[in-house]
Amino acid sequence: MECVPNISEGRNRKRVDAVEQSIASVPGILLLHRTSDVDHNRSVLTFAGPSLSAVEAAVRAVAKAAELIDLNHHHGVHPRLGALDVLPFVPLGELTIDHCVKLARRAGERIWTELGIPVYFYGAAATRPDREKLEDVRRGQFEGLRTAALTDEGRRPDMGGPALHPTAGAVIVGARKVLIAYNINLRSDDLQLAKHIAKTVRASSGGLPGVKALGLPLQSRGLVQVSMNITDYELTPVHTVYSAVERLAAAHGLEVEESELIGLMPRQALEMAAAAFLKMRDFKSQQVIENRIEQQERLANE
Amino acid sequence: MECVPNISEGRNRKRVDAVEQSIASVPGILLLHRTSDVDHNRSVLTFAGPSLSAVEAAVRAVAKAAELIDLNHHHGVHPRLGALDVLPFVPLGELTIDHCVKLARRAGERIWTELGIPVYFYGAAATRPDREKLEDVRRGQFEGLRTAALTDEGRRPDMGGPALHPTAGAVIVGARKVLIAYNINLRSDDLQLAKHIAKTVRASSGGLPGVKALGLPLQSRGLVQVSMNITDYELTPVHTVYSAVERLAAAHGLEVEESELIGLMPRQALEMAAAAFLKMRDFKSQQVIENRIEQQERLANE
Repeated sequence: MECVPNISEGRNRKRVDAVEQSIASVPGILLLHRTSDVDHNRSVLTFAGPSLSAVEAAVRAVAKAAELIDLNHHHGVHPRLGALDVLPFVPLGELTIDHCVKLARRAGERIWTELGIPVYFYGAAATRPDREKLEDVRRGQFEGLRTAALTDEGRRPDMGGPALHPTAGAVIVGARKVLIAYNINLRSDDLQLAKHIAKTVRASSGGLPGVKALGLPLQSRGLVQVSMNITDYELTPVHTVYSAVERLAAAHGLEVEESELIGLMPRQALEMAAAAFLKMRDFKSQQVIENRIEQQERLANE
Repeated sequence: MECVPNISEGRNRKRVDAVEQSIASVPGILLLHRTSDVDHNRSVLTFAGPSLSAVEAAVRAVAKAAELIDLNHHHGVHPRLGALDVLPFVPLGELTIDHCVKLARRAGERIWTELGIPVYFYGAAATRPDREKLEDVRRGQFEGLRTAALTDEGRRPDMGGPALHPTAGAVIVGARKVLIAYNINLRSDDLQLAKHIAKTVRASSGGLPGVKALGLPLQSRGLVQVSMNITDYELTPVHTVYSAVERLAAAHGLEVEESELIGLMPRQALEMAAAAFLKMRDFKSQQVIENRIEQQERLANE
């Protein structure tokens, strides 16, 4: 089980450390990754562990973030609704998304009953179709939803409320597949072209399923970037995204300078890419020595 | 630690099973792979385990093969010197080749003193430069070396002898890096072209370091194959081999139909291929979620 809390603090390192320590205080939990962004004033922590330990660590993180962060004094370019803003549970290995939905619900219940912070459910854990998308749940963010949750029946929290917590807002708890944050940098300074390619590949304008994309300038390096989130790498693998952007760039006479993985990606996505580019016939993950050893060890332990 | 015994039996399945069982009888040993070839009359077993368990399993495999196989009645197209013919120790993970040399020597000593079968050392475990190459050690094979070991000082076993074992011959024990058996099939029936490409990429004719290559026909499928062994994938990665063959084929107007991995390959080789084809900037193996979890688990256990 993987869990990726997003907290509304990206400047005060000690506060992020404190939230991280509250997570690490749960036995069996492994901290995997952490990034903070000063402009966004936001940090993303990634941890893994057995299901119930992950729920416990998530609840402790919400409590610690609520203790340290007051949204009335929080400013950043990224929208946010809660001190601990978003809390997705992500299946790893053979876990199912349904299992993650159950854990998200359990975590949401505890956050309201034990901490008194209202909860919205999103993603696969959403209770209604218009709450599946995070951006729909968060519309108006902390300042706007404080009022809307009271006045608009359709914007009430799923657990608790209707009033948001006066300083910690609400937590948006969900279940989703692993998300791969992946950027491709083009040897060009033509921002319009990067935006055009982003529009062509993004799902919302009829491109690749599950892909979100933006065209951005990388001014210090004289490059442009197609910045993407791949929300379902089994449906649209990383190598499919790479090849599509490479082909579109080539059609305009441009080359790919490099690509960047932001944070983590699942092993399967990398194996799929290698097997695809090498045109491997009947490649099986168990042909990787270490995978075979792990499989045999699991069998031996059962 | 990985160990890859080659035994001179590829037709009688029960005998191969018996050797496999002698290996599996050692606690901590994991059987990873097995292939048998009827024409070669030869089987290749792959197993992994802690160092001393691997030596114990190797010695048991030699004993069982010697009990069941009489080289005086063995026929196949592949050259062989012993009932258990070749016994390489291969480093996995953070193990060094020097560590494997020590284990090869230890196994060789036990094979002679406990089983009375002479031993030649090859690869990184060779005691003299003219024994580094397996094909040099095995020249003349069982029938020829029976005499040469007695009459030619330069052909004597490293441990025991000088006479070979009357039915089990001698075991060629060594240490080498992981070997990747990798074939690329071309959409063509032009065998001469496959042979030409094989010659261009193989190390012995000035091609890619550590690569052995042959051009072969795949008659049933109407394709030709460049069949390769990559003996040092860190020096010449799989993706470098693929791109070289693809480029040479394209220069003759041919396309790669597919590639095939025979047996196993190390995870690092696959990660290197994905990162190279995706042009990933600063990719680190620890960006793979499962690798990160394993690393954190190791740290937690220390």
